[in-house]
Amino acid sequence: MTDTLSFRVRSSLHYCAYEPATVLFSVRCSETSSQHVVDEVITTSAEAERFDLLVGTEQNPFTRLNFPEPGDLDIQHEARVETHPRLVAKDSIPLRGVDTADAYEFPYLFPSRYVPTDLLRSVSQDLFGHLEGACAIAEAVEDWLFENVTYVSGVSSEGTSGADTLLSRAGVCRDFAHLGITFCRALNVPARYVTAYAYGLEPADFHAAFEVYADGIWYLFDGTRRAPLNGFLRIASGRDASEVPLAMLFGNVIGSDVRVDVSWEGGSETPFEPVTREALRDSGSVLLIA
Amino acid sequence: MTDTLSFRVRSSLHYCAYEPATVLFSVRCSETSSQHVVDEVITTSAEAERFDLLVGTEQNPFTRLNFPEPGDLDIQHEARVETHPRLVAKDSIPLRGVDTADAYEFPYLFPSRYVPTDLLRSVSQDLFGHLEGACAIAEAVEDWLFENVTYVSGVSSEGTSGADTLLSRAGVCRDFAHLGITFCRALNVPARYVTAYAYGLEPADFHAAFEVYADGIWYLFDGTRRAPLNGFLRIASGRDASEVPLAMLFGNVIGSDVRVDVSWEGGSETPFEPVTREALRDSGSVLLIA
Amino acid sequence: MTDTLSFRVRSSLHYCAYEPATVLFSVRCSETSSQHVVDEVITTSAEAERFDLLVGTEQNPFTRLNFPEPGDLDIQHEARVETHPRLVAKDSIPLRGVDTADAYEFPYLFPSRYVPTDLLRSVSQDLFGHLEGACAIAEAVEDWLFENVTYVSGVSSEGTSGADTLLSRAGVCRDFAHLGITFCRALNVPARYVTAYAYGLEPADFHAAFEVYADGIWYLFDGTRRAPLNGFLRIASGRDASEVPLAMLFGNVIGSDVRVDVSWEGGSETPFEPVTREALRDSGSVLLIA
Amino acid sequence: MTDTLSFRVRSSLHYCAYEPATVLFSVRCSETSSQHVVDEVITTSAEAERFDLLVGTEQNPFTRLNFPEPGDLDIQHEARVETHPRLVAKDSIPLRGVDTADAYEFPYLFPSRYVPTDLLRSVSQDLFGHLEGACAIAEAVEDWLFENVTYVSGVSSEGTSGADTLLSRAGVCRDFAHLGITFCRALNVPARYVTAYAYGLEPADFHAAFEVYADGIWYLFDGTRRAPLNGFLRIASGRDASEVPLAMLFGNVIGSDVRVDVSWEGGSETPFEPVTREALRDSGSVLLIA
Repeated sequence: MTDTLSFRVRSSLHYCAYEPATVLFSVRCSETSSQHVVDEVITTSAEAERFDLLVGTEQNPFTRLNFPEPGDLDIQHEARVETHPRLVAKDSIPLRGVDTADAYEFPYLFPSRYVPTDLLRSVSQDLFGHLEGACAIAEAVEDWLFENVTYVSGVSSEGTSGADTLLSRAGVCRDFAHLGITFCRALNVPARYVTAYAYGLEPADFHAAFEVYADGIWYLFDGTRRAPLNGFLRIASGRDASEVPLAMLFGNVIGSDVRVDVSWEGGSETPFEPVTREALRDSGSVLLIA
Repeated sequence: MTDTLSFRVRSSLHYCAYEPATVLFSVRCSETSSQHVVDEVITTSAEAERFDLLVGTEQNPFTRLNFPEPGDLDIQHEARVETHPRLVAKDSIPLRGVDTADAYEFPYLFPSRYVPTDLLRSVSQDLFGHLEGACAIAEAVEDWLFENVTYVSGVSSEGTSGADTLLSRAGVCRDFAHLGITFCRALNVPARYVTAYAYGLEPADFHAAFEVYADGIWYLFDGTRRAPLNGFLRIASGRDASEVPLAMLFGNVIGSDVRVDVSWEGGSETPFEPVTREALRDSGSVLLIA
Repeated sequence: MTDTLSFRVRSSLHYCAYEPATVLFSVRCSETSSQHVVDEVITTSAEAERFDLLVGTEQNPFTRLNFPEPGDLDIQHEARVETHPRLVAKDSIPLRGVDTADAYEFPYLFPSRYVPTDLLRSVSQDLFGHLEGACAIAEAVEDWLFENVTYVSGVSSEGTSGADTLLSRAGVCRDFAHLGITFCRALNVPARYVTAYAYGLEPADFHAAFEVYADGIWYLFDGTRRAPLNGFLRIASGRDASEVPLAMLFGNVIGSDVRVDVSWEGGSETPFEPVTREALRDSGSVLLIA
Repeated sequence: MTDTLSFRVRSSLHYCAYEPATVLFSVRCSETSSQHVVDEVITTSAEAERFDLLVGTEQNPFTRLNFPEPGDLDIQHEARVETHPRLVAKDSIPLRGVDTADAYEFPYLFPSRYVPTDLLRSVSQDLFGHLEGACAIAEAVEDWLFENVTYVSGVSSEGTSGADTLLSRAGVCRDFAHLGITFCRALNVPARYVTAYAYGLEPADFHAAFEVYADGIWYLFDGTRRAPLNGFLRIASGRDASEVPLAMLFGNVIGSDVRVDVSWEGGSETPFEPVTREALRDSGSVLLIA
């Protein structure tokens, strides 16, 4: 699993602007210690001023597009990306508490827009309070999500928080992630939201999951279990979806018709073997892709 | 007003821990280009491991205290702080739109926990959509807050958002600031939340206000109008109160009994002249204290 | 306007049950002092046990249908209805306060599910507190709704309250009515929710509006102004939509495909003259259809 | 338990009116088939126009007081009340489904202000969906409340719904009752809210609990288990607390300082034996006090 995996991702977005407008979007892949963007191209179907930015602590790659005049615009993104996901033995991860948390960690312990930790402390304690260590808690949270929340489109919205999903027991990847993060932070485990391309996700779409922080490293968890964990290609990381929107529209502009495609391109002598939570549990490991 | 103003601030917090616990608190003053902390002392009434941190983009000064065992703890903070608040002519501030926003600005345009811009776009547009420029909008927002929201303790809580305050028309400084930020961001004006000591605030307490960003500079606004604008001593800045909590408690620990005192210590040949919004309006200026 | 107006209404509902299930629905017309159901037929496309009920203080006509086994079911409703809408001179309506409210009125002053009067007292007072009398307040509320809320499908949901609509400034007839009721009750004016067939509504659909109570009589108001006021055919009246659902489903059953048709059948020597709010205002009258 | 129990209740409320105002309050005891008000006196410390009303389907006893002028007012209520609580063998209660629900029952199946059944269907089904029969479900709900919700003052407010309490796991009698009702209605069990005096409640206060309806009869459940079930003296019954407020204030008037006292006055040859849930479970019975 320290082999290099190589993927090709393509995505397209469509916008219609009714006046000069600006769109901030996040579809490019992050450059991290475990992920290298070999090449990346963004093309637009019409003239639009483009500006790339790295935003915030996590240096998330955003792109600002200014539509100089009303009209339709297609955005095509294509990239070749190499990743080095790595397994870590769970019992090698030191247990660290909030008494050693540093300046980097604390914001991931604060409540945030979709993560009302203050509302869920008691429930989190009841469900997971007997566990110790970020990864043990996150694994139990992931199991709980998989077993208790139904993956359904259309029941949640832009306003849905982790508390809402705890009540409704239904939602999409974003909602699974927010509830997972809420449980973790409520138990003083730093947790963040990840947007990603995910190889094998059916139907193909942008994906989201959550990570917990233990002794300086982020570990990946996905309560939906709809894609192999080592097939994730990180787009952006933040405290919740409000910090890493797929797209944010300024002015009278409407988006539609998102398309995503992820293919495996080899890059290792052994073929890509999807890593599942079951396999990880059997091996006593967790996955690190940061 | 480019003179140096000198203040002495004192604050005290009291905690009772029922088990070993950790408190993260934010009472120290920021070091900025307009504010210098001449000296600062924190003392605790009992043994507690103390660790100072600078958190996030704005390098906010937090302090983590570990209570090694159950018991009471008093925290005393005292500092001497010099500030250089500066007036800027409103008509000298360039109008900048979201089409030129950069990586630093965008997070201050995103919705956040207490700032549900998506819910208030229509109302914001109705009330302030005819205005142009960050400072003109912020000034009108500040006026609106002062005229339409009643300063009342006890009607709002930790969960109160800008939308809640728009409905209730009542709250404390924190609520005024959140509603002000929501209006501004809904109109694509970058806005942030400021915690501060405020000279002249009656009764003395920690204070909060909001700032808007125009062409690289933050300008201060305070819909409560309960303290002179050039008497603010910045503690921390964030997207909203969830990022700059006065104190965050981890474990079974309870806080109480906050006390604050701010006095003017001279430091200029001319006496301190409190700057009010009316005076600023007459002079066609806004205040910059960042 | 004391002439008899005669209408024919038709509606159809479609359900698919995946198990034996029960549906409670409300599409029949009320029998009131101003409305007479000349004849009414409900037919179902398959065997289903049917039971008619008159529910609550207002004796609303509901129908309970038990689906003995899984399958599809069409419900067809058709009725001939005569109404006697009546104009009342506004200045003939006595001003009555809550100090004379009786057992019948008080529940229409309580907050209810979609009518959070406690949240909107201050705003209601600001906007309409200078007015006196149920009808004067309701008329101003109706004007405000028409001018400040946009009629849009799809932005509100089953959970949307009057407070939500005050923020979003958008919704459907149900949302207009709930916000109108909230304003009125917050000012101590008894108000209720009406479901109705509405002649001339485009596109044809079930409709909703609100009524206020003054000196023993209910008067009709409709902030959407999408149909003539004297073309309403009352289905049911309640404190809000939670008391008079179009349909409530018990068990695994799904509804779809609502169709409504209302035609004028004459019944008066003069042709039907749609009554608009403007005409009422000019005449100094309000409309009574209860 | 078919013996007559006799109690004396006293309560006092204090109001301060800043202008002529009206208060609607609910402290008198209901007259029902199982409860007889032998005598009842309300006295006020100053002149105030008093009007007694029986409100709604359940004929709840309210009192409207008009304060003709600003000032303080004490209201003293005292009554002697006889009750006939009755045990019913659980296995003698027929199982009835929503397919036989009648006009009286349906409103107790609708969602209401503090009872968002639509939000809690999935959780209710998970926790209690395997049970059959109104009393079996209600008993399990009561157990769950007792074991999972902590009785705490000050964490909930006038806006707290059953969904909020499911999240917070803490509240007062009102919150326990609302969550219990939400669970029951979400499983198609008609349920209502009861306000009562409760003998033995410590500290003495107004109390609230919930009832479920089975085959024409209401049975009492109390997830707080803070008072003997056969020591309840019914004040009012409604779909939730919004229909049976202790007091509703119209105008600038403030309430404070509620005091309650309940004493047992004998009235049976055998002394009053408090009925607990444990005793009921052992006997295979439920309690009926309606």
